[in-house]
Amino acid sequence: MTTDYTDVLIIGGGPAGMMTGITAAQFWPDKHITVVRPEDDALVPCGIPYIFGTLGGTEEDLAGRAPFLAAGGHLIIDNVADVDLDARTATLESGRRLSWERLVLATGSRPFVPPIPGHELAGVFTVLKDYDYLDELLTETLPDLRRLAVIGGGFIGVEFSDELRKRDIEVHIVEQRPQLLAASFDTDACAIVEQRLREHGVRVHTGVTVAAIEADETGKCVAGIRLEDGRLIETDAVLIAIGARPNTDLAHAIGLTLARSGGVWVDGFQRTREHPHVFAVGDCAHKQDYFTRHASHALLASQAAAEGRIAGMNLYALRLPRANAGTIAVYASQVDDLAFGVAGLTEASAREIGFEVFTGTSRLPDHHPATMPDTHEIFCRLVFDGNSERLLGGQVIGGPTTGELVNIIGVAIQLHATASDLASFQFGSQPRLTAPVHPIVAATGEALRARAHCRDNL
Amino acid sequence: MTTDYTDVLIIGGGPAGMMTGITAAQFWPDKHITVVRPEDDALVPCGIPYIFGTLGGTEEDLAGRAPFLAAGGHLIIDNVADVDLDARTATLESGRRLSWERLVLATGSRPFVPPIPGHELAGVFTVLKDYDYLDELLTETLPDLRRLAVIGGGFIGVEFSDELRKRDIEVHIVEQRPQLLAASFDTDACAIVEQRLREHGVRVHTGVTVAAIEADETGKCVAGIRLEDGRLIETDAVLIAIGARPNTDLAHAIGLTLARSGGVWVDGFQRTREHPHVFAVGDCAHKQDYFTRHASHALLASQAAAEGRIAGMNLYALRLPRANAGTIAVYASQVDDLAFGVAGLTEASAREIGFEVFTGTSRLPDHHPATMPDTHEIFCRLVFDGNSERLLGGQVIGGPTTGELVNIIGVAIQLHATASDLASFQFGSQPRLTAPVHPIVAATGEALRARAHCRDNL
Repeated sequence: MTTDYTDVLIIGGGPAGMMTGITAAQFWPDKHITVVRPEDDALVPCGIPYIFGTLGGTEEDLAGRAPFLAAGGHLIIDNVADVDLDARTATLESGRRLSWERLVLATGSRPFVPPIPGHELAGVFTVLKDYDYLDELLTETLPDLRRLAVIGGGFIGVEFSDELRKRDIEVHIVEQRPQLLAASFDTDACAIVEQRLREHGVRVHTGVTVAAIEADETGKCVAGIRLEDGRLIETDAVLIAIGARPNTDLAHAIGLTLARSGGVWVDGFQRTREHPHVFAVGDCAHKQDYFTRHASHALLASQAAAEGRIAGMNLYALRLPRANAGTIAVYASQVDDLAFGVAGLTEASAREIGFEVFTGTSRLPDHHPATMPDTHEIFCRLVFDGNSERLLGGQVIGGPTTGELVNIIGVAIQLHATASDLASFQFGSQPRLTAPVHPIVAATGEALRARAHCRDNL
Repeated sequence: MTTDYTDVLIIGGGPAGMMTGITAAQFWPDKHITVVRPEDDALVPCGIPYIFGTLGGTEEDLAGRAPFLAAGGHLIIDNVADVDLDARTATLESGRRLSWERLVLATGSRPFVPPIPGHELAGVFTVLKDYDYLDELLTETLPDLRRLAVIGGGFIGVEFSDELRKRDIEVHIVEQRPQLLAASFDTDACAIVEQRLREHGVRVHTGVTVAAIEADETGKCVAGIRLEDGRLIETDAVLIAIGARPNTDLAHAIGLTLARSGGVWVDGFQRTREHPHVFAVGDCAHKQDYFTRHASHALLASQAAAEGRIAGMNLYALRLPRANAGTIAVYASQVDDLAFGVAGLTEASAREIGFEVFTGTSRLPDHHPATMPDTHEIFCRLVFDGNSERLLGGQVIGGPTTGELVNIIGVAIQLHATASDLASFQFGSQPRLTAPVHPIVAATGEALRARAHCRDNL
């Protein structure tokens, strides 16, 4: 059998793999770049909840392959059966063999299913990033569904709850922490989002764990979920949305070093430990927290894409002096038209790590004067280190600009902005586009003022 | 006559004066803070064009005094007749006298009227920030107006043109540069905005100057504007929107040093040259360009507010280690639902200053997948210094997030971000809120790629 040659072989075609491919094709235009992935049609991962409401179909959530092909990349629909690191070859399930010069693992993650009794019953679903699985869920299961219980009150659980309640399904959401989104937001911010979900009829159960998923009289189908406090929530289906775990089957099989987090160990340029010509990116790769160096378990498409860019640029030489500094987990979402997002540490997480923090909160309209059409209120909380004055994190709740407001906070953290910087900086202001005073400036001013006041009282 | 005492006297109640007052009241809570201004009801300056369309009334564009009063400030509606810097007193037109400890001049600017023949005719208007003047324009002049010519194709001229064409007025806009907005945007970006205005029926005349405003048979009213190429644009009214000049009458009268730009000379903390207890902020204060130290003539409410914050914090001691670093002129606007904004240098202005630049442009949807409702295309051009790799400026055209995208660019410039920083940074990504790849990351990648390609070909 013949062996085909490619310069760069990327295994996996999600955001990390495709972004590596696009970047590699742009930065190394003389190289032959190949992505091997099992899916003919790959989904936009963050778009999955919206298949069930806003988008209205699985077909509407397809990630285009066009940018990669336009950049000169090659796509093979297949699975990788084996890789020989010494010979630098890969064997596909179809039997085809490829030899390569640089290998990039982008094998993604799988939904985590906890060992709750009953998790194997019919009617229990996970957020599997698979077209056929989700399409069946949408077209076969949902039309008859009257009641659904979502286990997990993080971003994905909240997004699914909001989309499914739009279909007039009775939605319950169960979270073991005292509030929804409690890992990402401080108490008052969580309360605002939770309140909006309740207003739309979602039944919120917080501070309680699930003891078991209970079966109906046939013993095969879901009838309800039993909480640890004894309550039974009757339901026709259960969606488990409590996170994902790196898919490192192939990496493990070929002997790559894994980090204690479970992901493939990588350096700041996404290179594996023993093989500098082998890279890992995205959910399958180990992530380090920006502040603590502890493992970060936030598996985000945007983080995966950032890693793909870093790997793609640095495949043959280090073209990017600034490498992956660790994840600060910038993300945002929406319930109804209420958007909410976060970058970096919350006040609670900063204190837990050991920072002595000072914080400021602003509440302002997102247009001015507030008589402008489509004006939303923006809530902005910023968390600063008390010693260096450096910005550690921020939370925003507001309208359509929330995602970019969170990105401002993310950029400011990554550039080591201090409270004095942000208080004195120029921010643009335009009646139909922004607040009269920038929410970040207002929250920073509030934080500095509170801090000065504390000092005066020493 | 008795003399009242106030710790801080602020003369002028626009964005600079009110922001100084609010900040002072927050940071120096034991001080008595007074704003003296002539207007009972002050307008939101950037909202003025919208009085004539989106807002629909002068009343809808009032700037609230509530935040200042709530912070404990005091407001006096009066004019300042005289100031004695040695005695630290001020005499108001009503005859009332105030003694003060810190004085802040926030006397604003006046529309610039060039010496065009005919500028004194009835029917010629300027953008005077005065309630009665604008209200009369709205309620007396506009209802009968069929045709209007706007002189000046900058932000204000473009905003007025777009608002007034919504009233079915035949609007002409005349600009002496080759394109509208040419001082703020590079050629291709200008073309996008210009095209949108034309689509809505605005007649655009670029690359031509106005020779005279011509009178009707009575010799008293506007009949048209004569261009230097001989053409006559017949019109019922003319709006002159070619900028403003600092109002330094009082500063001059009391002997403060003025900068060559015309504004009051101030240091990095907004303190005047000879009197460190006298401050100047906003349009009346000299502004230095961030990059060149030349005078900056961009008079922006957001810049004025930033200066007000810097002055307010530092009235009695320098509480803010980072001072006014110079203006980078962050601003944004909209034509129809097409928003456009800029921060820092354009490619043309950077080259003119002497930078050797490299640039990148991206065009991406602002939601993903692009099947999401309300998706707009975002155009983003970034300009980097070829030697340090530092970001010098950026232009964005897009939807509702444009204002905050420009603010990201502004923050990145002020924190000395490089292309490598921006290419490797994490940006959040959410289907209903942001692009699949962040426009700033995509434009940076494009810039780095183009630059690497140039190097390979050396």
